[in-house]
This record gives sequence, structure tokens and C-alpha cells, in this order.
Amino acid sequence: MGSQGSDWVTLASAKRNAILEQVPNKWKISGSVPSPKELPDVTGKVIQQYLSPHEIEITETNAIGIVEKTRSGQWTSVEVTKAFCHRAAIAHQLVNCLHETFFDAAIETAQELDAYLATHKKPIGALHGLPVSLKDQFHVKGVETTMGYVGWIGTFEGIKDDPRRKTFESELVRELRALGAVLFCKTSVPTTLMTTETVNNIIDYTWNPQNRLLSSGGSSGGEAALIALKGSPGGFGTDIGGSVRIPASYNGLWALRPSGRLPYEGVATSIDGQNTVLSVVGPLSSSIGGITLLFKSILSQHPWHHDPSVPEMPWRESIVEETLRLIAESKSTARGGLAFGVLRHDNIVHPTPPVSRALDSVIEVLRKEGHEIIEWKPPSHQLGAEILMEALTVDGGADVRFHLGLSGEPQPEQIAVNRPPGKQKTVLEVAAINIAKRNYQKAYLEYWNSTKQLTSRGRPIDAVICPVTAHSAVVPNKSRSMEYTLVPSLLDYTAVVMPVTEVKSQVDFAPDELSRAYLSEADKLTQHEYDPEVSNGSPVGVQLIGRRFEEEKILTLAEYVHAQLKGR
Amino acid sequence: MGSQGSDWVTLASAKRNAILEQVPNKWKISGSVPSPKELPDVTGKVIQQYLSPHEIEITETNAIGIVEKTRSGQWTSVEVTKAFCHRAAIAHQLVNCLHETFFDAAIETAQELDAYLATHKKPIGALHGLPVSLKDQFHVKGVETTMGYVGWIGTFEGIKDDPRRKTFESELVRELRALGAVLFCKTSVPTTLMTTETVNNIIDYTWNPQNRLLSSGGSSGGEAALIALKGSPGGFGTDIGGSVRIPASYNGLWALRPSGRLPYEGVATSIDGQNTVLSVVGPLSSSIGGITLLFKSILSQHPWHHDPSVPEMPWRESIVEETLRLIAESKSTARGGLAFGVLRHDNIVHPTPPVSRALDSVIEVLRKEGHEIIEWKPPSHQLGAEILMEALTVDGGADVRFHLGLSGEPQPEQIAVNRPPGKQKTVLEVAAINIAKRNYQKAYLEYWNSTKQLTSRGRPIDAVICPVTAHSAVVPNKSRSMEYTLVPSLLDYTAVVMPVTEVKSQVDFAPDELSRAYLSEADKLTQHEYDPEVSNGSPVGVQLIGRRFEEEKILTLAEYVHAQLKGR
Repeated sequence: MGSQGSDWVTLASAKRNAILEQVPNKWKISGSVPSPKELPDVTGKVIQQYLSPHEIEITETNAIGIVEKTRSGQWTSVEVTKAFCHRAAIAHQLVNCLHETFFDAAIETAQELDAYLATHKKPIGALHGLPVSLKDQFHVKGVETTMGYVGWIGTFEGIKDDPRRKTFESELVRELRALGAVLFCKTSVPTTLMTTETVNNIIDYTWNPQNRLLSSGGSSGGEAALIALKGSPGGFGTDIGGSVRIPASYNGLWALRPSGRLPYEGVATSIDGQNTVLSVVGPLSSSIGGITLLFKSILSQHPWHHDPSVPEMPWRESIVEETLRLIAESKSTARGGLAFGVLRHDNIVHPTPPVSRALDSVIEVLRKEGHEIIEWKPPSHQLGAEILMEALTVDGGADVRFHLGLSGEPQPEQIAVNRPPGKQKTVLEVAAINIAKRNYQKAYLEYWNSTKQLTSRGRPIDAVICPVTAHSAVVPNKSRSMEYTLVPSLLDYTAVVMPVTEVKSQVDFAPDELSRAYLSEADKLTQHEYDPEVSNGSPVGVQLIGRRFEEEKILTLAEYVHAQLKGR
Repeated sequence: MGSQGSDWVTLASAKRNAILEQVPNKWKISGSVPSPKELPDVTGKVIQQYLSPHEIEITETNAIGIVEKTRSGQWTSVEVTKAFCHRAAIAHQLVNCLHETFFDAAIETAQELDAYLATHKKPIGALHGLPVSLKDQFHVKGVETTMGYVGWIGTFEGIKDDPRRKTFESELVRELRALGAVLFCKTSVPTTLMTTETVNNIIDYTWNPQNRLLSSGGSSGGEAALIALKGSPGGFGTDIGGSVRIPASYNGLWALRPSGRLPYEGVATSIDGQNTVLSVVGPLSSSIGGITLLFKSILSQHPWHHDPSVPEMPWRESIVEETLRLIAESKSTARGGLAFGVLRHDNIVHPTPPVSRALDSVIEVLRKEGHEIIEWKPPSHQLGAEILMEALTVDGGADVRFHLGLSGEPQPEQIAVNRPPGKQKTVLEVAAINIAKRNYQKAYLEYWNSTKQLTSRGRPIDAVICPVTAHSAVVPNKSRSMEYTLVPSLLDYTAVVMPVTEVKSQVDFAPDELSRAYLSEADKLTQHEYDPEVSNGSPVGVQLIGRRFEEEKILTLAEYVHAQLKGR
């Protein structure tokens, strides 16, 4: 290790340049881009200036709209692929969101799809011609996976001369190809994946496209930044404590954290073999239709036949119909409609004013639609978050130290695991964590059941509405609140992130310091650091949470709630 | 501990006597029972002599037949309950199969059920009036749970003065009550649950009713012995490596090892918190209808709403219909019917002649019915068994030593864990086991998928037929083969045990020692120890195995296969 210590800067810099050099010259931004201070927001007209009107039309169509056109041949897969490759290349130059590009391979795939459609007069699958981006944990043939580790450059997950390098594909990738998706890039992650900002020693920091002074979130921050710039209509991240949800919320996107129904088989990860709490694969997209399409399409491939950890559970349309029936009843009967729990704060960090306003606006529209709202007072979220953090540190940071040690690179400041280096827990200590988790899950589930005594229809609540984080996108190193996403992870619950509003400095004034007690040091910091001027315009989402395996119900409810919000 | 060392004999003996004393005097066997040598088989006419003709009629009706009568009021729940209590009491006196009896509480429940039926003119649930026995890991109000540990007497799972003692109920028990089942006894287990014979320092050894010189199997040996004597129409055991399947096979019963779809919430167990391989709850019964009824009925209670580890997966009748359609096609089309893999041996221990004959008879009938048979050549079962055994010994025996130490009792000879006492594994070693398990599961699944190239219809095989153990019921301390059940446990696969035949000394001659090479020391011992005279009349079952969560399909196939066997 020691001998490599001086090399990591060179290696990282070479890789960073290689990523940029893969961008075709015609797509390189000529001249310098104004600094983030001068030009914080690079979405909309800023990125559009680099694109043709037809490229803009394509890339600003949502996933459902795209497959309608590519499956019918109205647009060729090649023109769609080229447009997204171009836009992704620009996006990376603006916010550092890519680890790998493979545009030529993507265009080749698109050509094959167009040929297939011409010959067979039918699309190859549900995602025929849809460009799909992937977090840099998924293995794709011909492409490296670094996961942000300098020591992984030129290796397979840190192993030199492993024949799987650039030849192995993750199960999800195989299924996406079978569905006709076009894979074209892999997106940035923070070193270790264990933080809510995206930073590593290769590509540095992935900035928030709507405000390049702020974080894009993490660990699926590259995915979210790319999709927010419409350089991809949707893609896949992973989430063990908020990693698809926090970036989605910071960037005004939709995301789904399902209960382990998508295949993780053959995906690189951290502290592999830790199985108290499992990371899950989840889609992010600029539209609810996008995450539902991606989720449903993968399920249609029967991932349980290729990933032993996925339960045999196809998309259940009957649950969608039952949910729609419940919604309809809220209009037609006097017995009340659906019931929602609302978690206004988690007793750890109060939401900032725009986040509270987002919750309020959802509650208001649901009440108007005839649904019941119940204050959600669950078992301690502090306890739940602690159990999860214990699970993520059972190895005392050994995995992180090993992979950093491959190159001798330093640990980016934002990463909390291994700081300070810890001790491996004993088997009996891990068993105690597993039991604590099970007891917590049981207590939470029974609390959920108990709400049937609080609703007028005598049914437990249908979903919980709560913040994603207490704040919108942060300036580097100021992430203060993860517990809102940690707890659903510990519970393995379904969680959909829905974009609701953005920070409005003229409305969301900083709270009066004297008006209430702080819940914690993190709460105090959050309230002190909240600056409506800095955050102005930043997206704010909320989580809609269901119990385990309630994806069909929660996606249906989320689409309904969002439609009501838009309808106002 | 030391001070208690001399007390454990007294405590155990007092508990043993208390169990016997709970039997009403009128049900005590007067005079001595002939010794096992004089009277090995106590089923049939032997146990019938203690019962009235009506009690015999009731207790020799299967579970489906009973609920038809109790739900319609043709039989009262009280008369059915009393008959089974009586027969269970006799059974215990013959083979030591019970840890707890609560006949008065059972009769009280039955009275309530009769009253309910009289008042409401409908049964309370699917199991209205059905007596159901439980392995002594389930907690029932008013009743102790010792799990065979002397140190648990007078405690809750070894904890003194715990308010849950005799007040807490396992989730499965709550659901059984809601369905109208009548709980009346808890059955014997081996100390630690980690062996295939049922022996502990409280009730001593649970003998096989068909041959009281042989083992009833384990760890759900008390359940199987009781049901084989028709002292219960069906009940629930648990299985982490064969513990419902081996006793079922040794006793000519049906059993289901499902993929974790039944609630384990609030059930006592060993090395709690080990979560590489989870123990599952599974039903045993004298009929296929019995295990299906018990399984389906519990699912109808939505166990996932009360046990966070159970996936939301109700009974899927559509899969039953699809399976029946596939069966029907074997008659009506030229394309071939179903396809089965057959594992003739696992490369570790050859089945004894009667077990091979059982496999052959299943294969023969399936071929005659137009189905395909493929030789099953899966990834190494030796490796799979080793991974599972590593998972079960991660704590180095600490859990076993702790619970034995509560009373100072010695460890029964049959129990292999903690012998010799081992070391706790490290977190990284456990992670390596988890990864090895996942890789094994993946390799097995892909092998299963690969059989589509071997079948004439181009579909992978529908199920695997294999032994339960290499031998039928053993004499104490001669269990040689667990790998046939360990591997499905590691895979979390669905496994149904189906009774097929019994050992026939005039047919199942001992193999010629020179005719083939031994696969292992265990194989050599198995072949040397096989004695057709000793085993004559012992039941032999086979396993029908499906992938994860294929319970509906495998139960349907098992019923079909058994009907064909019977029809010959």
C-alpha cells in the first residue's frame, strides 16, 4: 500500500481526464462555463443552449412518452439515444455526474433495436429504445466499475487480473437489455456509498444542477444530477439508508425504495456480506410514470429466477385496482376515504420551513379530497436510526479501510464510517442488533395496526407522509438529517419520494430562534444553517411510505396525491 | 451455575413427573406396557385398545374430515377435543412425546366454539374445532415453554421473574385461535433443537411409535410421534435443516418446509439473532389435506401484518390452477407433461435400498403418466451443507453453553453443536459465509434454469425428487445423513415430505458391500448399519422440492403424485 501512496493522485487524475476525453469533441463545451457563483442554476435554458430543438424535444419528453414513440417507431432509438448521450455529456461538464460513458455501444444497441423493429414490426420489450442510466455499482460489459475508489481503476472490484473485469454484467443490466433499454452511462457515487453527498477522489464533487453551490445528494447523487438535467429519463440507484431518496428530493425527482423486489445480484457494494440491513435497488426518474415503468418492467423479467434474494412477487395489478377503488370511495361514500399518518417531525430534527410547507400542502389537498389525516407517533426514530447505524458499522470500517488502502487515497471528509476507525463487533453483538431490529420492526408494525382505532372506517392508515430530510439540498458538509430515510430502510418499507415544491425565500422565512426548543444538536444546526436566500429555488420532496412490499399501493397513491397537488 | 449442578436431576425429574401427573387418572395406562423389545409397534390396535369406538372414529379421521364435521356441527368440538386429548395422553405414556398438556383449557375452548356455532349458526373460522398440536417452542398462555432445557423450568426462556412467563403467546398461536383451532398440548424437542433425534434431560427420549427401538426423528420428533399415533391430526414444528421433514419421513407423515411464509414471531429458538439461515415454521400431518389446510388457513390471517419477516404473499390459487393445467396437458398433448429432476444420491451418502425403492416408485409412476425425468446433478451438496453448518455454529456454541449452564445439566450425546466447544466467528468470517451462501443459491438457481435445455417442452424442471435422509428411522445415535434436508434449507426452497412406502425386509436386502465404492465415511456407516430386519416396517418418505415461495405448486404436485402412487 505504502508504495502506491504517491500514485493515487496521478491515477485519479488520469481517470478523471479519461472520462472527459470520452466525450466526443463536437459535444465538448467550448470556452469556459461561468462559475457556480455567477451561474448557480444550469438547468433549463442554460443546458438547452448546447442542444438542437429536436434534441431538446426528445430529452424533455418523459419516460412514458419516449417509449410510446420508440416502441411505435415514431422516433428511432438512435435519434433518442444520441440526444440523451449529448445531453448527458453536457451535464457531466456542468456538474461532474458521470463515472463512465459508453455512447458508441449505446448507439450500436439503438441501431439493433431500430433494425429489430423494422424487421419484426414490434418492439423488443417494454423499454424498447429507452435510454437508462445506472449508478456506478452496476457492472456493464466493456465498461469499468470504480464506485469512486481509485484502487478499483483497472481492476474488478479491487481485484487485479480478474477475468470478470469489463466482461461481467449485473443481473439488472441483463434484464434491462432484454427489455430493450439502451444503457449509455454510469453515474457518480461517493466513496464508500455511505454518505448523502456525492464526492470521491476521481471525479471530485457532484453539484446540484439547480444550484451548483449545493450538493446533489447521495449516494445516488450522479443519477439524480443527470436526470435533473434531463440527461437521462430515468435510471437505477441503490438505497440502504436514503441513497435514492435524498438525491431525488434534492433534485425535484421521483424515486422508489422498494422492499428488495429488484435484483441486486452481481452489483458491487460496500461491506458486502453484512445482512442485517440490505441495500436495495430503486429507480429514479423525472416522472412518476418513469419509476413505475422501470419497476414494473423489471418485475416482468421474473428477477426471482435469477436473483435468489428476490421474492417471487410479480407486479400485482389487483392491488392497484383495489387502491383506486378506495380512492374512488372517498368521493362516493360518507364513510370517509383513505387515511394518512403525518410525521411532522421525528423528534430529532425539525423540518425547515419549506419542508414543513411541503407537508402542509400535501395534507391540505388530502383533507380537501375527503381523506383523514392522523398525527403519526411511532416508536422512537432515534432508536431505529441507531440500530441501522450499528448494522452499517459492524465491521468497524474494515471494508472501507481495505478499499481505500488499495491506492492509499485519503477518505473524503463527508464520509462518516471508519471515522474514527472502529472495532469489529462480535457475533453475539451482531445477533443482538438483529434481534433489536426485529423487535423494532414488530413494534412499528403493531403501531401501524393500532391506527385502525383512530380512523373513522376502522382500517389502519394507508400510508405515512413524512419529510425526506429536514432540509433541502445542503452546501457541502452541512447534511444534518438522515433519520427520516434511515427508519424506512431499517423497516424494509416501501417509500416513494414525490417532488412537491421548492424553497421560496419570500415565503419560507427562517424560524424565530426563540419560538421552540431544539430537539438535538443536529436540530439546532439545521435551524441555524437554514438560509432562505441560499436555498431559494431548491426542490423539496416528501416521502410517502407503505409497509413491506406495498409498492403497487404506494405508487398508485403517490400518483393520485401528486395529481391532486397539480390540480389545485 | 456450580451450585445448581446437583439440582438439575431433581428439577428435571419433578417436571417429568408433573407432565405425567397432568394426565387425568382415568386416562392413565393401568399396569405396565410391554417393553419396546416385546412390543415395538404401538400404533393401530395397540393404542386403540385404550379408546372407545367413537374416540377411534374421531381420531382416525383426517384434518379435512374433522373440520367438515366440526364446522357443520355434526361433531361437537368438545367430543373431538376430548378424543384427541385422551389419545395424546396415551401416546405420551407409550413414546414420551409431550412436554406440556393443557386439556382443561382445550375443552374450555371447545365449549366456547360449540356455543359460538349454536348461537351464530356458522363456524368461527377455517379450523373451527380442529385440535392442533405445537412443538414446545411456541408460547401458549397459561403454559410453560422449556424447549427441553432444565434451566428454563419456571422461567421465560431462561429468564427468571419475566412477566411474559405463561402470559405471552406466539403470533402463530394467536392466529390459530382466531381460526377456531383447539390447542391442547406441546410436543417434545431435543435440547438445542440441533439434532435429528428427540432427546432431552426432562422427558428423556421420544421413541418411534411404529418401532419403539428407533428414533422418532428430530427436532420436531414429539410432533411426529404424536401425529403418527393419531394423538393429533396435525400440528406445527420448525425446520432449520430438516427438523419437520426428517421426523415426518421417519413416521410416515406429510410435512411442509415453506419459504418463511408462516410467522416465527414470538417463538423460542436457538442462537437467536443468527440470520444467515433462518429457521421456518412448517406443518406436519397424517394427510396432505392436513398440511395444506394448516398452511392456507394461517396465510388467510395475513401473518405479514403481525410478523415483519413474513412477505405479503397470500395463498395463490392461480398457481394451483396453472399447475393443474400443466398436469392435465400431460395427458392431452404430445409435447410431454411435467419434468422432474431426480437426485438418486447426493455424492455424500447413498440411500439405503428402501429409500432408493421409494424414489424408483415415484419415478415409475411419473413416467407412466407421461412426465419427464431428468437426472439432477446440482452444485455440490457437500459445499451447501458445509455453508449451513458454518452458519449454525457462528457463536461457537455460546448459546447452547449458556442455556445448559442455567441448570448445569449435561449436553445429551446426540447434540453435535458445541462439541467440541468452538470459538465465536468474526464479523468478517460471518460476512464470508453470507456471501458463500448467496453464491451457492445463485449457482443452484442457474442450474435449475439450465434444465430447460434438457426438457422436451423447453421449460425448466417443475420439481426435484430426492430422499429425506439416506435411511429410514435410526436406532439411537446412528443418524448418518442430514445433507438431503440441509441443502433445501440453505436455499430457502419449498420442500414437501410425502410418505411413499415402508421398509420390506423381504425386498430391501442389504447392499452387496463389494458392488460399489463408498462416497464417504458416513456412507460406509450407513450401508454397514442398514439392517432390513431392524428397519422392517419403518416408513419411508421422499422430498418434493420447489424453488423459493413455490408452496402452492409443490403442494399441488405432491397431492397429484401421491394420488398416482395410491392409484397403482
